[in-house]
Amino acid sequence: MDDSWKDWVHITKLDPDKVIDNDTVADIATSGTDALMLSGTLNVTQENMRELIMQVKEYDLPIVVEPAGPEGVVLDEVDALFVPSVLNTPDMRWMVGTHQKWVKHNHIDWTRVIPEAYIVLNPASSVGKVTAAICDISAADVAAYAEVADQYFSFPVVYIEYSGTYGDPKVVAAASKAVSDARLFYGGGINNAEKAAEMGQFADTIIVGNAVYDDGVSALRATVKAVQ
Amino acid sequence: MDDSWKDWVHITKLDPDKVIDNDTVADIATSGTDALMLSGTLNVTQENMRELIMQVKEYDLPIVVEPAGPEGVVLDEVDALFVPSVLNTPDMRWMVGTHQKWVKHNHIDWTRVIPEAYIVLNPASSVGKVTAAICDISAADVAAYAEVADQYFSFPVVYIEYSGTYGDPKVVAAASKAVSDARLFYGGGINNAEKAAEMGQFADTIIVGNAVYDDGVSALRATVKAVQ
Repeated sequence: MDDSWKDWVHITKLDPDKVIDNDTVADIATSGTDALMLSGTLNVTQENMRELIMQVKEYDLPIVVEPAGPEGVVLDEVDALFVPSVLNTPDMRWMVGTHQKWVKHNHIDWTRVIPEAYIVLNPASSVGKVTAAICDISAADVAAYAEVADQYFSFPVVYIEYSGTYGDPKVVAAASKAVSDARLFYGGGINNAEKAAEMGQFADTIIVGNAVYDDGVSALRATVKAVQ
Repeated sequence: MDDSWKDWVHITKLDPDKVIDNDTVADIATSGTDALMLSGTLNVTQENMRELIMQVKEYDLPIVVEPAGPEGVVLDEVDALFVPSVLNTPDMRWMVGTHQKWVKHNHIDWTRVIPEAYIVLNPASSVGKVTAAICDISAADVAAYAEVADQYFSFPVVYIEYSGTYGDPKVVAAASKAVSDARLFYGGGINNAEKAAEMGQFADTIIVGNAVYDDGVSALRATVKAVQ
């Protein structure tokens, strides 16, 4: 896709494994969020991903898919794939192995792929458990990962992922200082304007996920307003 | 450094852990090789690296250092650091962990760093042993690693490393087809014109190392002529 995604300051993350009704989808689409990211760590299939795409595609918002593995890759009717790689895991599969297998067995249209460097910081989250990410690390450690991702690996996105829990703003601030070229994404536990504004000081883009399901669209709207 | 390294078709690799006399250095410098890369996996220290730099710096050739770890980083009097990351290892330290530690404890001038994606294919070599690289992989596997390195991680160099042994031209050909933007480096067992020409068909740049020590400067000259 073109570089318009670099203007996004607010992304709403929807999980194909969760049920959402059409009225809520309509409310999300008019909330002011810049894009919808379809993503989940567990139980994502071609079927539930395609169902969710059908639900959201009629709106005028960019839609991107963030697959947890090759089985979750769907490109029809969406604008791009945001493909994560986890830096703070001991397991090479999540850094490069799964990607290599995907590339080996598929023809990839790289113009539609945006690579993301994930730094996973909630060990109790699904992504933390699945990747066995080493989350007990300092702000300086996170900053060093962020700098390596940005300057050594040339990732266009560095993603601080506290998935399901609100993170430490000092950690996000340190990552922000360490990154020069990449966009810094922050996700985790944002469910009101205050948290959105706090993380939005440091991150270029905030991602709001669970709040949509747990706190409703008015909470989502408040997070949008706080960063736009 | 600037992009002039992308014109190099022949690099001579010198090991700080090996002794080389000044006459041989003078012969190498006038052999037609495009650059000297100072690099070794074992027993490289600040001292022997600096000694080797002193020996080679008086010539008009570009000099780059390829450290095996932070302890081998020397930047005085050299043009750039070529910093490797190994893709086909099960050990995250060689993909990103060591880099993260280096960045955490040092201020890095990224304008002087060229990242290299290594695919290590000789399990009996020092680099194969140290990184426990999984070398028993097919040409299609190597090609997939090369494509991921090039398109997903944006490495400017993909390095097929058969360190100490002559590789399979079919593997290098497959990697060459898979790479679009990166320069493809090939190293391993090139000690005559025929082998240089064979790998030079597929690789953008060949690296000659052991031949300098084992077969003399006339062998080196033959490998230069074959690709220039």
